[in-house]
Amino acid sequence: MLSCNKERLEDKILTFSKFGDTGRGGITRLSLSEPALKARAEFCKRMKAIGADIVTDDMGNIYATIKGSEDLPHIAAGSHCDSVIQGGNYDGILGVLTAMEAAETIVRENISHRHPITVMIWTNEEGARFDPAMMSSGVITGKFDKEKMLASKDKEGMTFGEALDASGYKGDEKNRISPKDYMALVELHIEQGPVLESEKMDIGVVEGVVGMVNYEFQFVGQAGHAGTVPQKIRKDALLAASEAIQYLHRELDKLDSKLVYTTGRIICSPNVHTIIPDDVKFTLDARHQDPEVIKQVVKIIENIPKELAKCKVSYKELWSRKTVSFNKEFVSFVEKNANLYGYANMRIYSGPGHDAQFAADMLPTTMIFVPSIGGHSHCEIEKTSLDNCLKGANVLLQTILDIDKK
Amino acid sequence: MLSCNKERLEDKILTFSKFGDTGRGGITRLSLSEPALKARAEFCKRMKAIGADIVTDDMGNIYATIKGSEDLPHIAAGSHCDSVIQGGNYDGILGVLTAMEAAETIVRENISHRHPITVMIWTNEEGARFDPAMMSSGVITGKFDKEKMLASKDKEGMTFGEALDASGYKGDEKNRISPKDYMALVELHIEQGPVLESEKMDIGVVEGVVGMVNYEFQFVGQAGHAGTVPQKIRKDALLAASEAIQYLHRELDKLDSKLVYTTGRIICSPNVHTIIPDDVKFTLDARHQDPEVIKQVVKIIENIPKELAKCKVSYKELWSRKTVSFNKEFVSFVEKNANLYGYANMRIYSGPGHDAQFAADMLPTTMIFVPSIGGHSHCEIEKTSLDNCLKGANVLLQTILDIDKK
Repeated sequence: MLSCNKERLEDKILTFSKFGDTGRGGITRLSLSEPALKARAEFCKRMKAIGADIVTDDMGNIYATIKGSEDLPHIAAGSHCDSVIQGGNYDGILGVLTAMEAAETIVRENISHRHPITVMIWTNEEGARFDPAMMSSGVITGKFDKEKMLASKDKEGMTFGEALDASGYKGDEKNRISPKDYMALVELHIEQGPVLESEKMDIGVVEGVVGMVNYEFQFVGQAGHAGTVPQKIRKDALLAASEAIQYLHRELDKLDSKLVYTTGRIICSPNVHTIIPDDVKFTLDARHQDPEVIKQVVKIIENIPKELAKCKVSYKELWSRKTVSFNKEFVSFVEKNANLYGYANMRIYSGPGHDAQFAADMLPTTMIFVPSIGGHSHCEIEKTSLDNCLKGANVLLQTILDIDKK
Repeated sequence: MLSCNKERLEDKILTFSKFGDTGRGGITRLSLSEPALKARAEFCKRMKAIGADIVTDDMGNIYATIKGSEDLPHIAAGSHCDSVIQGGNYDGILGVLTAMEAAETIVRENISHRHPITVMIWTNEEGARFDPAMMSSGVITGKFDKEKMLASKDKEGMTFGEALDASGYKGDEKNRISPKDYMALVELHIEQGPVLESEKMDIGVVEGVVGMVNYEFQFVGQAGHAGTVPQKIRKDALLAASEAIQYLHRELDKLDSKLVYTTGRIICSPNVHTIIPDDVKFTLDARHQDPEVIKQVVKIIENIPKELAKCKVSYKELWSRKTVSFNKEFVSFVEKNANLYGYANMRIYSGPGHDAQFAADMLPTTMIFVPSIGGHSHCEIEKTSLDNCLKGANVLLQTILDIDKK
């Protein structure tokens, strides 16, 4: 059966792992940084070597296209090559490398295909240098204002626009991925969670990206000296926050077991060991594929007591996103191909956001997940076994070929 | 009956409120800063005007002495003139101003006294510029190493030693307050808490400074992406911390009602809204005058479950102090004098630490509290009514004269 080449894929993974190598097994490859530019150059060199034509668009997204036998819309596959600080060698880049490997297999094996096949690198998916995440797909799909994005600054005060100008990858807006010129986008990505591994699965057939809400709770009490204010008259905002966390866990645990929710950030003021906290805020992130479950979450949030530990309780929505469903036919191609190769697979929703989720608004899109060892991601020990990387590449290859036959 | 002068005292309060005035009702007068040096200069000018001899010691503490009729050990009264950032016009400085006013009354009213009376300014009580708090009394009583203290740096990198050299207030070690040259120290201070006001008291007869323990708890879980890790396998360190806060409140609330305890500082890592916290620390500060109650607190700390929310729980003592009891005879003088003037008074323990608490180790010492409006302190709205300031000054004056008769 048609297969990508394991040694070639391993070489790609090892080569790209050098760009931003932290020396501790991971990488720091911030968007448009020197290591990211080296990765882009290596990508272009290798894609040119297999005969690809390369263009970039006005957000610095790279499109490396191998011609098809007919003048038809492109099939795109790819992901991003930027990482978070002290990230791993698989998040994003594996979607690029497997798409490169699929394209190389098609070229080297001389597999006929009607549609041009375009391997993509999205600029600044992580948002770790220039906020926000998924910047370029957000601009292209009209979710983010381009001028604002160009003005987004890194810690040194350099804007994204300046970094883009200096990168040499700024191209023409007409080269953007679009429903007119593209018929499909397939993004392979690591799961970034423990489900596939714990279920002993090789492939995650991604049905969509779960909807989510992100709220911030605030508790306002009364500051005072730790040594003077009698306990019975205190208004301790941290005590209130701890009661709220308990309330949320107690109530949210009654909902569907697939709901994931996180109180990840807490800010306590004045945060001094000898002063009673008077202002505490924490965030709640909740995700589920079923909008009805998200509605139940919001109901629980709205039912939080107005006062806890004598402190005033308030909350506000920071942001939310609706569940995104991928193209059902493409999802079924991924599932069929995983079965074809005999790879253990399951349907799954993505918790994290990806460029593909934005792109799904404008053209038929799907994703393929491969397992993350220990569920680790956004850290240096992030890993997917080479075998599973190859399995992902094979499913990607066949899915591209299936789409090509449409 | 003998009384300090209200107008004079008001003038002192208003004058010193200018040194470091934030323009919002409070002051920022960090130790040995320019505003603090202006306050010191004004102190010296005014004390010289009533005939005092002024010396300083090697920590920059100022001693302004009016002679007694006999060659006897001094009676000292005073406090500090430094403040926290955006502090108020009463913490510390009121103890200096009331001692100045008591001395001025003695001089102007020509009240005979056998002992020299020394009005003191302690250097760097707050520790807000140079860590730690109560630095000079700590050095003089052997609790802190002087060389280490001299090397303590402010945010700009200037050492306490450098600031002291530059201040012009560095004097001789032989001038230090000591059991040989001093027979008593009386420090008037604002309560910094709400008890006197809520009990409608004018004077707090301070019996001592409560003992305290300060612990740090740590909760170690497993980080993970907010969107991927199923709820049932999470090890959420913030959930563990919230359970621990609930546990501590539930158990500590069963102890004596005079116990005060505070979970004032919480540090959550990585503290990102989309990541499950894997490391949370919070502090517990607990204070009570009875060492047996503090022992019960420690027992509750030791009995915290080893695991909460599947996270590893640990704790360590950061620091502690034993209850300090002031000189019983002096305490009774304060009480007698408050009654003599007809001022509502109650016995009270100090929750906060004061230089007098360190000094109590080497010579007979006591304190007088006056009420803080709303219990506010270490903030710009900190206030004590002028009437209560005067009442405090009168009790201080009479207590000095009582001690003088010993």
